[in-house]
Amino acid sequence: MPSDSKFSRSIELSKKNMVAVSLTSLSKEEFTNFIDSFDTVLTDCDGVLWLGNTVILGSPNVIIQLQEMGKRVFYVTNNSSKTRDEIVSKCSRLGYPATRDNILSTAYLTACYLQDIVFKKKVYVVGSKGITQELDAAGIKHLDVGPDPMCSDVASLLRNEVQLDKDVGAVVVGFDEHFSFPKMVKAATYLKQPNCIFIGTNTDEILPTEFPLTVPGTGTFVRAMETCTNRKAFKIGKPSPYVCEAIIKRHKVDPKKTLMIGDRCNTDILFGTRCGFKTLLVLTGVTTLGEVHQLEKSSNKEDQELVPDYYIDRLGDMLPLIS
Amino acid sequence: MPSDSKFSRSIELSKKNMVAVSLTSLSKEEFTNFIDSFDTVLTDCDGVLWLGNTVILGSPNVIIQLQEMGKRVFYVTNNSSKTRDEIVSKCSRLGYPATRDNILSTAYLTACYLQDIVFKKKVYVVGSKGITQELDAAGIKHLDVGPDPMCSDVASLLRNEVQLDKDVGAVVVGFDEHFSFPKMVKAATYLKQPNCIFIGTNTDEILPTEFPLTVPGTGTFVRAMETCTNRKAFKIGKPSPYVCEAIIKRHKVDPKKTLMIGDRCNTDILFGTRCGFKTLLVLTGVTTLGEVHQLEKSSNKEDQELVPDYYIDRLGDMLPLIS
Repeated sequence: MPSDSKFSRSIELSKKNMVAVSLTSLSKEEFTNFIDSFDTVLTDCDGVLWLGNTVILGSPNVIIQLQEMGKRVFYVTNNSSKTRDEIVSKCSRLGYPATRDNILSTAYLTACYLQDIVFKKKVYVVGSKGITQELDAAGIKHLDVGPDPMCSDVASLLRNEVQLDKDVGAVVVGFDEHFSFPKMVKAATYLKQPNCIFIGTNTDEILPTEFPLTVPGTGTFVRAMETCTNRKAFKIGKPSPYVCEAIIKRHKVDPKKTLMIGDRCNTDILFGTRCGFKTLLVLTGVTTLGEVHQLEKSSNKEDQELVPDYYIDRLGDMLPLIS
Repeated sequence: MPSDSKFSRSIELSKKNMVAVSLTSLSKEEFTNFIDSFDTVLTDCDGVLWLGNTVILGSPNVIIQLQEMGKRVFYVTNNSSKTRDEIVSKCSRLGYPATRDNILSTAYLTACYLQDIVFKKKVYVVGSKGITQELDAAGIKHLDVGPDPMCSDVASLLRNEVQLDKDVGAVVVGFDEHFSFPKMVKAATYLKQPNCIFIGTNTDEILPTEFPLTVPGTGTFVRAMETCTNRKAFKIGKPSPYVCEAIIKRHKVDPKKTLMIGDRCNTDILFGTRCGFKTLLVLTGVTTLGEVHQLEKSSNKEDQELVPDYYIDRLGDMLPLIS
């Protein structure tokens, strides 16, 4: 009945914590209630499980422990530069049990989306082989990726060197370390056609790494292409609800019994909030506890959606609590 | 007297046309009044005087005629890839009388700005020699520009290849056809220091060219760097009021007797409106008449600032009216 469901929804919304609770401050009983409240775990990777190629100590044992307790674990990553097989290898190498079926990556989900809409033309990819190999696996045609550097002056480039393929009907922008001016011209010119589909794999502005450098992420490339085309990309990754759609379509997931773990409030936690999951922020990646406290104080509704239900310094700190 | 000036200002503002008037629809007398209403002309270049390397026919004769009538003409360009000397050469080649003194380009104005604030450190330039040569002329230190391509994988780049200069105290982002991931990492990392100055030469999202391609402009590079640094660049070019400040500082210009000619409502016309100039849109560049009519209908105050006082299909169409 509409009135009832409206009522229960308003209760649910009012239940959303406005203040993040420290997991380590819970009593034994409260912690047990927390663990019993979910049967499915979605976890982000970069910043939660590893930083670049370095494992975050303690995280593997917690993931293994959760699986041994019967929780289903899905790895949900906005990283668009790896195929599911590559992510499985990386998980295994760093100590996380994984198979293809519990990887939800944006490269794979981009291919899923193009299949869902029965896309039959070619894709121009600003990105890496992570995307094109998933497109191949889904039988979707695409142009090649890799370096396409600026080799002459602008006038010569525009006059002679920009070769366009008339079969292109979509532009996918992911993480591309070979991002270049010739690629930008091509992508922008394809997108001049209003019926050319424009997909951004995700909106993460920076990549968390173990280096003391600011490393631009896919969101930076997507924003650049949105700027020169005056169009908005359809976003695949967190916090876009498309990931949730895809999970529900492919796996039986009850949002109320699902925990989302992440290191970024504006992707992972927002995604979790939007999908009705419980949310846990770890402080080993992008968002700091200071930023969480700022969000808690905000009266802005959009900021409140970014406040996690729980936080913990590092995922590994859960191990003594679980054991 | 404050109350008087307030009053006259409110009259002035209410006089702002909400509908652009076609110059060719004016009577002989009205046109003479229009010509007599200004003694100074600021004209944009790309899209008004030329498209890339091709002159827009008729424009040179109008500029020459205006100068012969005693009007001072300044070339105001957001193009950051050329020095004033290069723009003088281009003007001469295409038939426009010019000297260094009547060129106001963003490369030059960037150097002026850094001089104004007595900047003593080094500049990291995402841009071209147009900028570094103007910095040299102003005695401002900088790192080299040119290709800085991606030569290895991301991990190797971040681990070994990003060399940073501790003397850098400003990042200038202009038009850079060699825009690359290594440059983005360096610029973003310098800008991590809150006291590192962040300058964008301009915000034009695309370049007008004679080719059927969408060509990303400086605004696209600036937006990318703003995205990954979560900072806003200080903008030098139109519509930033800094150009106006610089003109008034260096030349005696009475805004009420000044005409701004341009092809883009969101840079040239907005700049003219903000500075209190009369504005003339030509339709040989970016903005179309259809877009002007949309702006005229808008009740949004910001849109109204983009409506030009006058428009004309091409600048050359003024010639029979002047003669």
